[in-house]
Amino acid sequence: MVRPREKLATRESSRDAPDHAARLRAFGDALGAAGFDAAIVSQPQDLYYLTGAAQPSNLVVVPGQRPVLLARRFAELTRAQAPQLEVRSGASFSAVERELRRAGVERGRLGFELDVVPAALYRRALAAFPRFAIEDCAPLLLAQRAVKDPFEVARLRRAAACFERLHETLVAHLRPGRSELELAAEAERTLRRAGHAGIVAQRRWDAALQPEGAIASGPNLATMSGGPITVSGVGLSRATPFGASARAIAAGDLVNVDLGINLDGYHADMARTYVVGEPSERVVELAGHVRAIEDALLAAVRPGLRASDLHAVGVAAAERLGVADVFQGHGGEQGPYVGHGIGLELDEPPVLGPREQTVLAEGMVLAIEPKLISPGFGAVNLEDDVVVRADGCELLSAMPRVVFVLDGAGGLRGELS
Amino acid sequence: MVRPREKLATRESSRDAPDHAARLRAFGDALGAAGFDAAIVSQPQDLYYLTGAAQPSNLVVVPGQRPVLLARRFAELTRAQAPQLEVRSGASFSAVERELRRAGVERGRLGFELDVVPAALYRRALAAFPRFAIEDCAPLLLAQRAVKDPFEVARLRRAAACFERLHETLVAHLRPGRSELELAAEAERTLRRAGHAGIVAQRRWDAALQPEGAIASGPNLATMSGGPITVSGVGLSRATPFGASARAIAAGDLVNVDLGINLDGYHADMARTYVVGEPSERVVELAGHVRAIEDALLAAVRPGLRASDLHAVGVAAAERLGVADVFQGHGGEQGPYVGHGIGLELDEPPVLGPREQTVLAEGMVLAIEPKLISPGFGAVNLEDDVVVRADGCELLSAMPRVVFVLDGAGGLRGELS
Repeated sequence: MVRPREKLATRESSRDAPDHAARLRAFGDALGAAGFDAAIVSQPQDLYYLTGAAQPSNLVVVPGQRPVLLARRFAELTRAQAPQLEVRSGASFSAVERELRRAGVERGRLGFELDVVPAALYRRALAAFPRFAIEDCAPLLLAQRAVKDPFEVARLRRAAACFERLHETLVAHLRPGRSELELAAEAERTLRRAGHAGIVAQRRWDAALQPEGAIASGPNLATMSGGPITVSGVGLSRATPFGASARAIAAGDLVNVDLGINLDGYHADMARTYVVGEPSERVVELAGHVRAIEDALLAAVRPGLRASDLHAVGVAAAERLGVADVFQGHGGEQGPYVGHGIGLELDEPPVLGPREQTVLAEGMVLAIEPKLISPGFGAVNLEDDVVVRADGCELLSAMPRVVFVLDGAGGLRGELS
Repeated sequence: MVRPREKLATRESSRDAPDHAARLRAFGDALGAAGFDAAIVSQPQDLYYLTGAAQPSNLVVVPGQRPVLLARRFAELTRAQAPQLEVRSGASFSAVERELRRAGVERGRLGFELDVVPAALYRRALAAFPRFAIEDCAPLLLAQRAVKDPFEVARLRRAAACFERLHETLVAHLRPGRSELELAAEAERTLRRAGHAGIVAQRRWDAALQPEGAIASGPNLATMSGGPITVSGVGLSRATPFGASARAIAAGDLVNVDLGINLDGYHADMARTYVVGEPSERVVELAGHVRAIEDALLAAVRPGLRASDLHAVGVAAAERLGVADVFQGHGGEQGPYVGHGIGLELDEPPVLGPREQTVLAEGMVLAIEPKLISPGFGAVNLEDDVVVRADGCELLSAMPRVVFVLDGAGGLRGELS
């Protein structure tokens, strides 16, 4: 069952607080179960999750022992932000080694976030810890982070609610003659004022997103460019070839907005399509199709479902509607996913793709994102965030799941679904 | 000699275009001279520099041979954006290996950007290229990128000019009662409309900056937090603990704005301090000191000077003025630098620090950034960008190098220097 967005206080209250001690214990247990003797955690979002502080530091975790946070700089501030932890000043590898020795760990398997730590730093670690095998501990941490606690769900719900303010700005400013860039500037201003941190955290070394995400219109809707986002826009230059361009929006255009909203560290990921003026019959039809696919996906989400099976639900719906050839892309560039986890990063496991064996669990928060893309019509897109509940899922935002039709003079004319 | 900003057409014209073939030849030569048999380049800024395209791809460079660009996705678009290059579809390591074999390279030293490539990808490369020693080729590329050609200087000058528009917005909006965040929202809007790409490119895996940079006021000026920036601000939450906070600016406050402006891929890095209302005698004095230190630094910049010697010039000036204890930080957290290179990334080599042996060369573009920081008064800051010329340096922006005194009602009251 798909529930609408609940009122803030129904399940999570703003008094919910993260239990960092429990998170650290669970991570220590997972390390131990996976055969790690210790781990160094240093990625800002992972640190924030485990300690409450995202200051530059190395967290040393030994299963069954009290973790120690080594501050690279700002030890006093780090201590103030992680008061429950032992914080020491100095985070060099020799300081880490000292902590490991103090914990009685002199050799074995040492976890490190190898998915994000640069190779050069990894090679320094190999030299610094010659008696350890250094292995990737990020999958354990990300698996733990995939299930959100009530504090996190409340934060994600607040982030998703920001889209409503963005929508008002888009309706007011989306007019023929305005450029994608001008729209992006207004979107950024609104989002920042709503509390967007101005940064979109992603576990990617070779891609980034603007705070207002990808704004694209007309022919730019079907040009996939620059990074991991499907309706990417083409950007202002070849140096940053994604996001809003200088293109002026024309009457009759479709316009897509797909973004990550980082509120207090937690990212909503949502997208909507707008029609500036009269929609064509084809667009009316496609809006119905994308809504039907999203309905099918949302109806399928429940604990126990394999991620790959949810992907199959989306593909089957697209086939039934006769739009499989433009589902999640076109030509040779169709994206093998219908969504992904969200949280402290915009893209978190599980990816909802054809080979992903992860089983959905209560408390996971997922972005569900069916899109129809073709050079023929552009792109028609829906993306919504849900928390997996015992009996299905609950939408995190109250935004209508429709394509919006604008009058091009600052007003809303209708909705397609 | 320090020259003021020259008119756009004096040295570089907008018709200047990058010579990608020459850049690739020079990089191939540098690889060969350093004993590399081949290199894979895949970081977006490095790709853009060498090819003109920043699309996801692996560029295979073999000294003395024609490079091949392997597109991970979007081969057609990549081909259109790098028309001078051989572009092939598919960028897996086995596709790379095929290119190496075709070039007659079956073993040896293989360059990879180990400063940014994640450890997990590096380990996959080790497994895929067992007959190669994989070594870091990023220093060669960054050394080449450090000296800018006329096209690049022209782009950097245009980026620096955007600060003038930002300044107008700051003067208009910096009023008692406005929050740092509200100011950040207006700053972002102005910058984006001026063409800021909305992304600040940095070669850092564990830190990021908002497009409008760090906006900080009052007590937040002396709280160093979250990342590599000195006057960092404290951010909206512990999850993103840098940049603008929700703090309301008060009459008499100092406010700092320090940011990277990414225009068509090239980053200006500038900072100014504003006083909202009547400046104290101490602030008047400090504004004179920071200007005197910047004057000394700018007067010293010339080809042939060692970076460490430029740093020493800054330290000596601070000592002479009696502010060495608050120069570039306070307490145990003083930053060992007076500036750094800028370009396709906000922070490029050389760092202008006490141990940096790089000798300044004509065509390098540097951010010079003296700052005085203390919990007692906050921070007084100047940051300007210069291109190293045969006879000294030339400022890239016409912004007055002063502390601005505002009337707090949308007007400028005076300047301190």
